[in-house]
Amino acid sequence: MKRVGVAILGLGVVGGGTYKTLVDHREFYQKTQNVDIVVESVLDKNTARLKELGVPEECIAGSIAEVVANPAIDIVIETIGGVGVAKEFVMMALKEGKTVVTANKEMISKCSHELERIARRNSCGLYYEASCVGGVPIIRTLLDGVQANHITEMMGIVNGTTNYILTKMAQDGADYQTALKEAQALGYAEFDPTNDVEAFDSTYKLSILSSMAFHTKVPYTKVHREGITTVDAKDIAIGKEFGYALKLLAIGKNSADGVEVRVHPTFIPAEHPLASVNDAYNAVYLRGDALDDIMLYGKGAGAFPTASAVVSDVIYAATHSEIKYSTFKNNATADSNVKFISDFSTAYYIRLSVVDKAGVLAKICSVFSKYGISIVEIAQKGRECENSDVVPLVIITHKTKENAIRNAVAKLKVSELATVESVIRVEA
Amino acid sequence: MKRVGVAILGLGVVGGGTYKTLVDHREFYQKTQNVDIVVESVLDKNTARLKELGVPEECIAGSIAEVVANPAIDIVIETIGGVGVAKEFVMMALKEGKTVVTANKEMISKCSHELERIARRNSCGLYYEASCVGGVPIIRTLLDGVQANHITEMMGIVNGTTNYILTKMAQDGADYQTALKEAQALGYAEFDPTNDVEAFDSTYKLSILSSMAFHTKVPYTKVHREGITTVDAKDIAIGKEFGYALKLLAIGKNSADGVEVRVHPTFIPAEHPLASVNDAYNAVYLRGDALDDIMLYGKGAGAFPTASAVVSDVIYAATHSEIKYSTFKNNATADSNVKFISDFSTAYYIRLSVVDKAGVLAKICSVFSKYGISIVEIAQKGRECENSDVVPLVIITHKTKENAIRNAVAKLKVSELATVESVIRVEA
Repeated sequence: MKRVGVAILGLGVVGGGTYKTLVDHREFYQKTQNVDIVVESVLDKNTARLKELGVPEECIAGSIAEVVANPAIDIVIETIGGVGVAKEFVMMALKEGKTVVTANKEMISKCSHELERIARRNSCGLYYEASCVGGVPIIRTLLDGVQANHITEMMGIVNGTTNYILTKMAQDGADYQTALKEAQALGYAEFDPTNDVEAFDSTYKLSILSSMAFHTKVPYTKVHREGITTVDAKDIAIGKEFGYALKLLAIGKNSADGVEVRVHPTFIPAEHPLASVNDAYNAVYLRGDALDDIMLYGKGAGAFPTASAVVSDVIYAATHSEIKYSTFKNNATADSNVKFISDFSTAYYIRLSVVDKAGVLAKICSVFSKYGISIVEIAQKGRECENSDVVPLVIITHKTKENAIRNAVAKLKVSELATVESVIRVEA
Repeated sequence: MKRVGVAILGLGVVGGGTYKTLVDHREFYQKTQNVDIVVESVLDKNTARLKELGVPEECIAGSIAEVVANPAIDIVIETIGGVGVAKEFVMMALKEGKTVVTANKEMISKCSHELERIARRNSCGLYYEASCVGGVPIIRTLLDGVQANHITEMMGIVNGTTNYILTKMAQDGADYQTALKEAQALGYAEFDPTNDVEAFDSTYKLSILSSMAFHTKVPYTKVHREGITTVDAKDIAIGKEFGYALKLLAIGKNSADGVEVRVHPTFIPAEHPLASVNDAYNAVYLRGDALDDIMLYGKGAGAFPTASAVVSDVIYAATHSEIKYSTFKNNATADSNVKFISDFSTAYYIRLSVVDKAGVLAKICSVFSKYGISIVEIAQKGRECENSDVVPLVIITHKTKENAIRNAVAKLKVSELATVESVIRVEA
């Protein structure tokens, strides 16, 4: 039986889950995969953690130099996170011809071009299933499951923290701050939640997944990014009346016109399969020219779901001789032949506060019409309190250009006809 | 660039979709997969169909002997269906060392042990992603995406015809015959629908998927099979009031006690991800010891979704040198060490017609109690017509043994206390 030696760098949540999964399943993999995967070496400064996990003395590495010099190690698992030390250690491992398996979305999103180049040069693999959507094998699916298709569209709920917060806001009518605090109390959100709630995390993942799906480098800097910090529970409730659910979607589209990538709060129809993906669950919805549509759903984070992805990559690397690198020219920047669309088209939900006076509605409609925006539905939602002369007005548009909406909103703002309370994109 | 020659046997719905997909995407695969996949040969007696698809004269094969003797052909795609000719042709191809890609669930379910043995002996591959759940890469996921896990549970909606019929019955209150006719008119059901509605199709698929998931041979004869022909729309409506949706589920469970495989109409909670899988869509829900739960969702049939799976297998075979055979000892019969559980445990929904007389309810309850069946909920649903003295009574049980329920139902039948209208299993 083939013997494969593994090292784990970093015993945090995912690293710890990976260690336990490998140790507990060693016999199972011998039996089912015909490979003996042995944890040879673990690198972490936290001796309490090493003890807690029961790492045997002889497996504790003193330094990264010791790990990469060890000829018994074939695969190095990086579960440190971030771009600093993690990247340095990964480069050292690749340069010694060790295959690397990582859960690090920030590093892969920012540096895959460099790392993959080193991997190719040293004939070793670079695997990162665990960087996106936890235990859901979305990268394996893109590489080996739906590769017969031109993927034309991808919509994902790829961040559990924000999905948990939006679910609470939708179900309990909680405001953003309250839902965030609950998420923090449950360990779903970090003390500094910026990376999740400002959608950096989703942006990294979208750049990785859309690069793979569209066979072209999509740098994360090309992604239009908006987080959920200004989402108003009122809009979630009103959207529900219109038959919509609000989700933070990572959207990628690929057509003859170019590539469009954006992350923002989005209304989708209540009957869309993504609409019932709640709490900390994630899902990715794909459209391909042959397969039509599919969706993959599951736990997007957590020690063991993420370890499942890490270890599946380890087994794949241990049982396949061909290394599937990315299928695009892996440069730091986008291919200059690819047009990125910033003035994308979608439908919009716009909530205004309007002075309830004759003629105002007509004037507002004429602003939209001036910018070529055609309206599907307009609804006055009733006065918010008795003695106010301001009423909420909700407008749903047909598919229209982003810039037209921006211009119309700017015009409304200076016109004093209405206060623009919120603008939310709507996808079908 | 590597050149891979392909033959297609049978130009029916799936064969035709596969032909078009391969021809239309040839350049795309050259660019994205670095492989030139060429349709060398097509075998079908129907000259009108060959013409309709525009198969060039020089690609039309005269016989299977000609196909398997052609050294330019590396991969043979079988899209004939059934076990007769299809199996004969596949065996001829494998014996000549041609890798086979097939969409044939009946053949794989019944004969994979023989076919795989020949494939191994001739060092060629046998791929059958397209045999289960159309464009959804469930087999690739089991082999290369979640293989780090002990899969403990699988629940699938793996037949589009029956899911369409049950969806119509649920949404419109239509009876079975009406919904079946509608499905036939739309081409979702065949003129003779037996294979789908009696759940043979789902049974073949469950045997394939659970064999792979549980790493042990699960012959289709071990699957407990019940179709949907006796489903009453009344139960779907009553189940909805209890918070359930009715689906034809293919269920596989694997525990220390043994393997349990069954296909039958099943109530699941309305908030379960499978409950909102409607119309002709399919989905497979998996539970693994590391990944927790995931679900894959998509079109389970149709020319192009199925072609997507066929061609993804072709590309996989063309770009990987290791062949992943099944991970169990591939015999015709089950491993004698594996216990198959026929007296499984689940919850039950039982609808009775009861004479509305004092003391009857107590007597019925005592029958259940006698067989150790504990009741969660009991509801008298109101008299069906004014001048009847019979009332419908619905009972939901706790998890209980199948045999206990069978005995209780038999007892009720002879007792004349009640008519047993329906017994439907409930999964959480």
